[in-house]
Amino acid sequence: MQTNDLLKQISFIKEIDKLKYIQRKTKLFNSDRPKNDAEHSWHLAMMTLVLAEHSDKPIDILKVLKMVLIHDIVEIDAGDIFIYDAEKNHTNTEEELIAAKRIFGLLPTEQAEEFIAIWEEFEEGMTDEAKFAKAMDRFEPLLQNTSNNGGTWKEFNVSYQQVYDKKIAIKNGSAAIWNYAENLINESVDRGILTK
Amino acid sequence: MQTNDLLKQISFIKEIDKLKYIQRKTKLFNSDRPKNDAEHSWHLAMMTLVLAEHSDKPIDILKVLKMVLIHDIVEIDAGDIFIYDAEKNHTNTEEELIAAKRIFGLLPTEQAEEFIAIWEEFEEGMTDEAKFAKAMDRFEPLLQNTSNNGGTWKEFNVSYQQVYDKKIAIKNGSAAIWNYAENLINESVDRGILTK
Repeated sequence: MQTNDLLKQISFIKEIDKLKYIQRKTKLFNSDRPKNDAEHSWHLAMMTLVLAEHSDKPIDILKVLKMVLIHDIVEIDAGDIFIYDAEKNHTNTEEELIAAKRIFGLLPTEQAEEFIAIWEEFEEGMTDEAKFAKAMDRFEPLLQNTSNNGGTWKEFNVSYQQVYDKKIAIKNGSAAIWNYAENLINESVDRGILTK
Repeated sequence: MQTNDLLKQISFIKEIDKLKYIQRKTKLFNSDRPKNDAEHSWHLAMMTLVLAEHSDKPIDILKVLKMVLIHDIVEIDAGDIFIYDAEKNHTNTEEELIAAKRIFGLLPTEQAEEFIAIWEEFEEGMTDEAKFAKAMDRFEPLLQNTSNNGGTWKEFNVSYQQVYDKKIAIKNGSAAIWNYAENLINESVDRGILTK
C-alpha cells in the first residue's frame, strides 16, 4: 500500500514539472524575461517566510506555504490568465476546478483531498491564511512592475484605478505591507510609470 | 523599527530574484531546457510536502521547507557547482559562507541569523530535517535524468558508481524512497542510460 502511494506521489511530482513552462505576463525584476509559475511560487514562499510577522492576524505559516506553493498548479491545464484581463475572470473557473481534480487526483486520495481543499481555501480568500497568501500574490508583481519602469502596466495600458482595485487585497492580510504598497503605487504615478 | 525591518526584508526579496538566473546542469523532465535554482527549490518544496510521510524519523516539515527553499540562495554569489565536478567540492565552501552572510545579511539581524543557521544545518546534514531535505535534493535530479535518457550522466560521462555514491544519501532520510531510487539506478544500467 505504501509503495503504491509512493508511485502515485512520484507521478504527481513528475507531472507538476510542467509548471515551469507556464509563462506569466509579469517579468523578472529589472528584466524583460517573463517569469514562470514555478519561479513565482518559490518567490511567494520566500516572501511568506520573510514577511509573516507583518500579518495582522496570527497565521499558520505551514498552511500559507502550502497555499502559495500549490496555488498555480491548476494553470498546467487551465493556463495563466492575466490579472487585468477584461474578458476572462481569473478566479476559480470551472476549468480550474477540473484541472485541480485531474492534477491533485494523481496523488493518494487523502492527500489529493487535502491539496484540493487548501487550493479552494486560497481561492475563496476568507481565512486569515488565505488573506495573507493572497497579499503575497498581489505584492510580488507590484514590486516587479515598479522595478521595471511600469512593466506590464505600461505594456497593457493598465490604469492606476485598476492597479489599486487589485492591490487593495493586500490590506486584508497586512496593514504594514499595504501601507508600503499604497505608497509605492502613489509614487509610481509621480514617477510617470502609472497613469491616474 | 518595524518599518525599517520591512524595508530590509523587501531589499532581500528583490535580491533573491537573481536565483531565477542561476542555471543548473540538470534539465527539466523530458526536456533539454536547463532548469534554474528557483524552479529547483520550488520542486523540492513540493516534494517535501508530498513525500514527508516517508521520512524514517519524525520531522518538522516547516523546517525542512525552509531548508529546501533557501538552500541554493548562496549560489547567487557563489554559482552552481555540478555535483559530479571533480575539481571543486560542492559543500560549504568559504565562498558560500561569504555569500550567505552577504545575502541573508540584508535581512533584519534576528532573521538573518535564523536563515544562516538553517542553511548551515542543511549543509552539515546531521539532523533528521537536514537528512530528509538532502534526500529530496538528491532524488529530484535522479527522476529528471532517468526521464531524459540519462541526461547529465550521459552528457558528462558520469558512471554508475559516481551516481550511487551521491544518491545513497537518500537512504539517510527515507528507506522507502531509497528503495525506489536504488531500483531506478539499477534499471538505468539495464536500460543502457548509465554505465556500470
